[in-house]
Amino acid sequence: MPRKQVVTLITDFGQNDHFVGVMKGVIVGINPEVEIVDVCHQVNSYDIFDAAYVLLQSYRFFPSDTIHLVVVDPGVGTARRPLLARTMDQKFVAPDNGVLSLVYEREENIEVRHVTSDHYFLNPVSNTFHARDIFAPVVGWLSKGLEVDKFGEPITDYAKFTSPKAKKVNDQLVKGVVLRIDKFGNMITNITPEDVPQLFQENPPPFKILINQQEITKLNLSYSMGKPSEIFAIVGSSGFLEVCTNRGSAAKALNANRGAEVGVMVGA
Amino acid sequence: MPRKQVVTLITDFGQNDHFVGVMKGVIVGINPEVEIVDVCHQVNSYDIFDAAYVLLQSYRFFPSDTIHLVVVDPGVGTARRPLLARTMDQKFVAPDNGVLSLVYEREENIEVRHVTSDHYFLNPVSNTFHARDIFAPVVGWLSKGLEVDKFGEPITDYAKFTSPKAKKVNDQLVKGVVLRIDKFGNMITNITPEDVPQLFQENPPPFKILINQQEITKLNLSYSMGKPSEIFAIVGSSGFLEVCTNRGSAAKALNANRGAEVGVMVGA
Amino acid sequence: MPRKQVVTLITDFGQNDHFVGVMKGVIVGINPEVEIVDVCHQVNSYDIFDAAYVLLQSYRFFPSDTIHLVVVDPGVGTARRPLLARTMDQKFVAPDNGVLSLVYEREENIEVRHVTSDHYFLNPVSNTFHARDIFAPVVGWLSKGLEVDKFGEPITDYAKFTSPKAKKVNDQLVKGVVLRIDKFGNMITNITPEDVPQLFQENPPPFKILINQQEITKLNLSYSMGKPSEIFAIVGSSGFLEVCTNRGSAAKALNANRGAEVGVMVGA
Repeated sequence: MPRKQVVTLITDFGQNDHFVGVMKGVIVGINPEVEIVDVCHQVNSYDIFDAAYVLLQSYRFFPSDTIHLVVVDPGVGTARRPLLARTMDQKFVAPDNGVLSLVYEREENIEVRHVTSDHYFLNPVSNTFHARDIFAPVVGWLSKGLEVDKFGEPITDYAKFTSPKAKKVNDQLVKGVVLRIDKFGNMITNITPEDVPQLFQENPPPFKILINQQEITKLNLSYSMGKPSEIFAIVGSSGFLEVCTNRGSAAKALNANRGAEVGVMVGA
Repeated sequence: MPRKQVVTLITDFGQNDHFVGVMKGVIVGINPEVEIVDVCHQVNSYDIFDAAYVLLQSYRFFPSDTIHLVVVDPGVGTARRPLLARTMDQKFVAPDNGVLSLVYEREENIEVRHVTSDHYFLNPVSNTFHARDIFAPVVGWLSKGLEVDKFGEPITDYAKFTSPKAKKVNDQLVKGVVLRIDKFGNMITNITPEDVPQLFQENPPPFKILINQQEITKLNLSYSMGKPSEIFAIVGSSGFLEVCTNRGSAAKALNANRGAEVGVMVGA
Repeated sequence: MPRKQVVTLITDFGQNDHFVGVMKGVIVGINPEVEIVDVCHQVNSYDIFDAAYVLLQSYRFFPSDTIHLVVVDPGVGTARRPLLARTMDQKFVAPDNGVLSLVYEREENIEVRHVTSDHYFLNPVSNTFHARDIFAPVVGWLSKGLEVDKFGEPITDYAKFTSPKAKKVNDQLVKGVVLRIDKFGNMITNITPEDVPQLFQENPPPFKILINQQEITKLNLSYSMGKPSEIFAIVGSSGFLEVCTNRGSAAKALNANRGAEVGVMVGA
């Protein structure tokens, strides 16, 4: 028996409307055997980086041949192209607005196609809901095993952005930013252990993490090691340095948001 | 192999409780092969029109033989009847409170039955959770292929409301209302292009859309054609005229809600 | 054909992040034939009782052999153990923090194992996301039919709490608490009909329910029997006495929260 085809969904559609349900209706109408997994529909509205980050944190944990549909699409109805991208073992369908950038950055071999096969689209195609009229049917047919070359030609001029990297200012200082605040109020930065290796050596020197004019001087191994209302850092499951507190919201405590600057001063 | 049976769910149960999960537990307990698709659980509490609208916008995009379960049920535990309705190719299970009205209005051939076959219900039936005790088991058995006449007799006196239609006041003025605000703050009206055909002719005359004492004078083809903070109209994926803004909430900008009156003055 | 394996999920992860999606990715990567049902991801953050209550209200409505994965896990990354529990016909995977207490309390025969088989875990195991790295893979393998003894040895010293029971103060007075406020604002107490049998006899005596210095003197059979803005009691689908109002939030009207004391005075 062939393995069941998994499709994941990442959108900024929220859950107050029929949008996500209708996309699924179109997909299962074409391929009733597909397994659809919602990854996140609460991406910040119109926020391409936010969707790219959620995709980065999720796609690697899905089985081979999974199709990831990502629709954060403020340019819907314009000339921006629909894309079908393929790595060694996964596929991605999305508008050509950079939302796949973190996949492009991470994967060595990636082929990107401009989807032009409009005979697969719902008809007529609306100007405001391509998730329903273009992306969902493409995913439906793709999940049935249609070859990628049936959907359009490869392109190389697709939109992409470079993810914000932590910067080594000098031997003592690394600067980064907060990429995202999670549901618990943990602040995920773009600083990795490789950016500040001194903190992870056997006898680490003292250090300060600076966010919004506040200093954090502790690195813990788990959330629950934190004392009540103490703010500390941790290496999170994303592989990035997180700033957090035990059973509470570090973002609220520090009054800082996504995009906030983060400095790590080592040996200070 | 028979096609997989799809069941959709529309409720006002939200996602903070066990309600939706338990409905699914009852359904998969009866028919483990069913494919359940959440369309929306964030219908406004007790709001029958809101559920009817979400159903209208979604059911047509699901495959033949889909069963749509709609539970917005302020009368749970009273004598209001459970219904099983059938069109040419889809089925609907819901309380008899008008929540299927927009399906009745749209479909030519519809058969509605009063579900009386209480041997299919969970026992004892609670007074407050018929979704679990009546509707979910009926859907479970129905999805296994049981004939509709096993559930009860046809009736014709089911509850229904007429959807609010746009009114032509004179050759220059059409009046309607805002049916719904979507997640992005777009305001979906009940005015269709057929109600204001002048706006869609080759050289359309000037026009004004009036909402909450503010004037909108532009019709765009896509959201992203809007200039920053400009409010404009668009024909949305629902087939209705929407009032919106590019990357923002028109509803907030106009400080208007569902139910707000909308006037379209043509040639003014 | 063997029955499809159902897995349910209860977490405090919310739906703004990739957390739930990634758990599902890991599970379907191991067993693509599983049927995953979200019961609730909006459990109050870190709130073990809240998760235990949602589990109690849901697990009995799922078919035999369902696996329930419950992750509210403030102690993630510490020595708290991962558990696999088994009753006569269902299985439970959760951290050893008491979150299964209401199952332990209700079920007569329950076997609890400490999951130590780390060759099933994702590698490396993070310190902050055991749902992804430990619990999801254990559920994946368990759902494929692996015997429970492959995962670890039985233990008896697992964490458990006793659920708060209503107390009979004297023949006239029973005291309880509000266990939970549901989405509609209904207040679910821990008082059962067995605690106040006089209210359910043929000619019940007058009674008062006291919450937050307000008196409720009516018991209805359904929500919609309530007059506008009247606060009344009902025996809810949970089997507990609920305090509610017709088409509105009793919790808001009474300005009372979870944990509020509730007194029932009979014959007063």
